[in-house]
Amino acid sequence: MKTYLDCIPCFFRQTIVACKMIGLADNTTKEILDRVALKIPDIEMTASPPAMAAIIHRIIKEYTDNPDPFLEIKQKSNTFVLEIYPHAKKIVEKSKNRLLKAVEIGIAGNIIDYGAPINLDIHSEISKILNSEEEKIKNEDPACFAFDDFTSALRNATTILYLADNAGEIIFDKILLEEIKLEYPHINLSLAVRGEPIINDCTISDALFAGIDKIATIVSNGSDAPGTLLESCSGEFLEIWNKSDLIISKGQGNFESLYRGPGNIFFMFIVKCQVLARDMGRHLQDVILCRNNPE
Amino acid sequence: MKTYLDCIPCFFRQTIVACKMIGLADNTTKEILDRVALKIPDIEMTASPPAMAAIIHRIIKEYTDNPDPFLEIKQKSNTFVLEIYPHAKKIVEKSKNRLLKAVEIGIAGNIIDYGAPINLDIHSEISKILNSEEEKIKNEDPACFAFDDFTSALRNATTILYLADNAGEIIFDKILLEEIKLEYPHINLSLAVRGEPIINDCTISDALFAGIDKIATIVSNGSDAPGTLLESCSGEFLEIWNKSDLIISKGQGNFESLYRGPGNIFFMFIVKCQVLARDMGRHLQDVILCRNNPE
Repeated sequence: MKTYLDCIPCFFRQTIVACKMIGLADNTTKEILDRVALKIPDIEMTASPPAMAAIIHRIIKEYTDNPDPFLEIKQKSNTFVLEIYPHAKKIVEKSKNRLLKAVEIGIAGNIIDYGAPINLDIHSEISKILNSEEEKIKNEDPACFAFDDFTSALRNATTILYLADNAGEIIFDKILLEEIKLEYPHINLSLAVRGEPIINDCTISDALFAGIDKIATIVSNGSDAPGTLLESCSGEFLEIWNKSDLIISKGQGNFESLYRGPGNIFFMFIVKCQVLARDMGRHLQDVILCRNNPE
Repeated sequence: MKTYLDCIPCFFRQTIVACKMIGLADNTTKEILDRVALKIPDIEMTASPPAMAAIIHRIIKEYTDNPDPFLEIKQKSNTFVLEIYPHAKKIVEKSKNRLLKAVEIGIAGNIIDYGAPINLDIHSEISKILNSEEEKIKNEDPACFAFDDFTSALRNATTILYLADNAGEIIFDKILLEEIKLEYPHINLSLAVRGEPIINDCTISDALFAGIDKIATIVSNGSDAPGTLLESCSGEFLEIWNKSDLIISKGQGNFESLYRGPGNIFFMFIVKCQVLARDMGRHLQDVILCRNNPE
């Protein structure tokens, strides 16, 4: 997805939110905003928003001399979701359609996102989803919840690359990966994380914390963007990308950077931004499972 | 009111809205946003938001080589309100408390504001107010609708300076000025407008269109800010300011630039921005008639 004019105020809003979350004083935040502002003329509107988000967070990390300002937030999310993992796992095991429930829970986990413009009480949202076993979080519109299409893609896949999004969410991703592995044991699974800390996105340590290494090969994408900007990913990642016959992409950042580009991709995320909702013809908080549409 | 961090994303949002209203293409708007961004490091957070708004609109005027990009919008507002002037006037004339009704209608006119962050269907809002004669638009909380305090200030006044806000609204201001003149014929009235076109704010031509010259001396404040930044106002304006024993200030921009500063001022406006609402402990769309609180 290209950068829209309305993304520009949002870059500043995101900067303020991030600075507040990591406890910076207003005058420090203003100095960071000044540096972000000076980068605005460099934005190519054809680039996807995560390219600018990477620049913003590079500025925050450099200015605070802290390579991982969201570390504590990520650890809290991981611990929180790990505690509810057994409960979520039971819900899947009791379901008539285990894979569908695992997909739903996987997407529900995408509520954990500290970069998005909507404010949600993440703990209460997740509890709501898990405590209502009968609740269907999936979107009834097959155009944006292409589950049948997704399962037939899984049936035909031999090598899957799963692009993780946020810490905490990664433990819900594990549930989905476990179901895929159970139903299609022949599939070779890899899971990609960000190459460097960026907002609350997963890095290798979060994937290891979730125990992803027991079911998939963990790979760093080599980039510090909160998305998958192929041009800034490592050769190692691109090799796995090219060898995979199916890509499962979690989260809005990966969607923004990959949709309409190359790749046999299924996107799973919750719509958390009005600009993207408009671009897709969807609504805020819509649950999306959709196939890529290369241009 | 000082500039808050949350004003910074809003400066960009305001720029986009203004550029859209005057029909600029996205790539032109992006170039204007780039120029606005380069000014962000110059913002003093102790300055009031209208100081930055003036800079933004100087950039727009310079870039489009159009000294009055909102001219047509202002003319439309003036024509629209002039058409309903007789009806509004009748409502005041039929009221038990004519001055209160004129104040209410004067503040209602402040709904006409193309710089504010809330979206209102101005025509339908105004029709709603005028077609419901019994409707009290005033805020029931005396802390923010100090009508008794205002009337006693009027009784004691001999020279009033009225700071106008927007085109269109100026015709409602005329109704209020006419009521003040009727009730207190001894009072000497002046009305100040912006020194140069800025957004849809009143300049001398709008005040003349409204026929203000028949009841008050019209004065330019000599500044191009959408507020009253005393340090950038003309000597002629400051002389009248200093000679006036009561100042009536319309609109949020005048409030932002004058509140807590010097002056025996009553502010009348509708709260149209979350940051200001938070600063005042009020809510969006609250109707305000309050006395200045010099620090």
